Amino acid sequence: MTEDTSKSPTPRVPANRDGVVISVDAMGGDNGPSAVVAGMAESADKNPEIRFIVHGDEVQLRRLIGRRKVLADRCDIRHAPGVVTMEDKPSQIARKGADTSMWAAIESVKQGEAEVAVSCGNTGALMALSMLRLRKLPGVNRPAIACLWPSRNAQGFNIMLDVGADIKADAPDLLQYALMGASYARNGLDIARPRVGLLNVGTEEHKGRAEMKQANDLLIAAASDSNFDYVGFVEGGDLPGSRADVIVTDGFTGNIALKTGEGTAKLVGEFMRDAFRNSIMSKFAALLAMSSLKRLQKRIDPRRVNGGVFLGLNGTVVKSHGSADATGISAAIKLAFQLAKSGFQDRLAARVAKSAGISVSATDAETSS
Amino acid sequence: MTEDTSKSPTPRVPANRDGVVISVDAMGGDNGPSAVVAGMAESADKNPEIRFIVHGDEVQLRRLIGRRKVLADRCDIRHAPGVVTMEDKPSQIARKGADTSMWAAIESVKQGEAEVAVSCGNTGALMALSMLRLRKLPGVNRPAIACLWPSRNAQGFNIMLDVGADIKADAPDLLQYALMGASYARNGLDIARPRVGLLNVGTEEHKGRAEMKQANDLLIAAASDSNFDYVGFVEGGDLPGSRADVIVTDGFTGNIALKTGEGTAKLVGEFMRDAFRNSIMSKFAALLAMSSLKRLQKRIDPRRVNGGVFLGLNGTVVKSHGSADATGISAAIKLAFQLAKSGFQDRLAARVAKSAGISVSATDAETSS
Repeated sequence: MTEDTSKSPTPRVPANRDGVVISVDAMGGDNGPSAVVAGMAESADKNPEIRFIVHGDEVQLRRLIGRRKVLADRCDIRHAPGVVTMEDKPSQIARKGADTSMWAAIESVKQGEAEVAVSCGNTGALMALSMLRLRKLPGVNRPAIACLWPSRNAQGFNIMLDVGADIKADAPDLLQYALMGASYARNGLDIARPRVGLLNVGTEEHKGRAEMKQANDLLIAAASDSNFDYVGFVEGGDLPGSRADVIVTDGFTGNIALKTGEGTAKLVGEFMRDAFRNSIMSKFAALLAMSSLKRLQKRIDPRRVNGGVFLGLNGTVVKSHGSADATGISAAIKLAFQLAKSGFQDRLAARVAKSAGISVSATDAETSS
Repeated sequence: MTEDTSKSPTPRVPANRDGVVISVDAMGGDNGPSAVVAGMAESADKNPEIRFIVHGDEVQLRRLIGRRKVLADRCDIRHAPGVVTMEDKPSQIARKGADTSMWAAIESVKQGEAEVAVSCGNTGALMALSMLRLRKLPGVNRPAIACLWPSRNAQGFNIMLDVGADIKADAPDLLQYALMGASYARNGLDIARPRVGLLNVGTEEHKGRAEMKQANDLLIAAASDSNFDYVGFVEGGDLPGSRADVIVTDGFTGNIALKTGEGTAKLVGEFMRDAFRNSIMSKFAALLAMSSLKRLQKRIDPRRVNGGVFLGLNGTVVKSHGSADATGISAAIKLAFQLAKSGFQDRLAARVAKSAGISVSATDAETSS
């Protein structure tokens, strides 16, 4: 553990010396900094390349991190006295939140000392601060939040966006979501040529709102040049399905679909537990099937897909669930690491710029994936 | 089985002589008339009060119904040569579909010889014909389709609407959906005072699109006088939850939420079956837990909640899943029966009229529930 405090100028953790640096907002989640530090430890234990800049209450963090051997010499603790609560309004935080751990976590990305920021705080405030400090990428109109969705596809997940950065999206926004989501699929899920679908109320071309038809036309035109396959309209049932790897929708619909899916999986899980508590016979059966049931639980565990990624900014921010425990936070950190390691941010920027007709160096555009 | 054919004038089946008459479109489902007749038989077997007017290919229907003892003397078969396919466009059917079984099934409701129509055909065509032949109720702007959603509530289900009658809804439409959904909950689910929620991306008052805020104000104003409790904004996770009995949204969002929930439940079910096939031990466990697993399967079986109800027309139409088998069709018929038996249609009409300020007899308005 480094012993620098926020009072003296803090030595930077160079990104490429000892591995990948992740900036962590340790405060503001439902389970406080102890869950965050436990998640960092879980992640560090599995991944020798990872290092952290940790923002929050220094006294608490020093104590929590001091207890974890695996975190020794891998954390740069930065004191931030302010905490963004779940009740804080984004606009207030944008005006007065400069002393908060969330603000500082984003600032580390802005200053180039960390490659990705992770927070399990208030989503609205995190997006507002990310927009304010990192600014939108040239060529991006609306940033988006992308989530992972357990699916029947080989990679085990689909990507859906936007799940709540903005409550609306017009056709050009939906095209940008497709470009950003495809770039995320290539870099985050290693899918060389992702299949992109547009979420609608039917698969026929005449279905849905006017902006869906316009977006459909834009996607057909853009696909071949943008290194993805466009599969056309998809429906709610395709979110966990195998027709597409990336599913594009507006943030209102995406947020409701995401929470509906989570709620449904939770209900089915509860019904399943009820079923196995039903009789002595079924309790005995549950014991016998324990390892299979554990594998099942792992497969549908929402903590494994924890991590909404903010796309379309000058820097990558991973939003973990507010209620995430150590396992959930570790999953979000792993995702952040993978995106940082793949050089995702630069590739995404080049891809968006190319589509928007903004000149970038030929090398960037050609190697962007 | 009555032996009248469509060639001679068909004697009407009086609604209140021998029970409740349901008009059935026997064609157009994915599994053809044999599944429909099997569903009718399942339903008739459990319910001595039920009678049918069955529309479709007379030769096929006569043969299929002739094999089911329980349907003898309870079916009035009406020949309709035309079939609406899943590929037919609603506008074409509205112009040229007068010879189809779907058209005839709705006509029986219009003519007052049946109280509710049931079809598992093309949803768009069914809505178009229902609008064309039954017309909108006085005071209704957009009819809606309401579905049942398995939930943690005491009644085991929540009602969500609109799930796809229309792709948009403004604030006054959402208010009407609330009135119609609450009426459905009172008559279809026996909930004396339903709790109504408005689907949004967050529960705080400032969240969501402008029409959500307007609808929120309208619902607050309408609730006390309309015999329901308004619980405010709810989220996707509340669809299977216990915060509300009726959840109101536009048809675009509702359709995507419905299909997302169905898709997710199906995926979890598949994962569960995989888990129990995983090892000899788990296969043995599945045998031991067979009765519990069957109960679980029943609890999450989408066929049990089969039946979208068209609300806001001069007559009630129940849309069964296109892929419904006998169990699914029987569930849709049971729902149709329950709504017919409760006098739902008249009560709904009185409720909507009262809210729209259309004069109705004092008795109707007071007893409407």
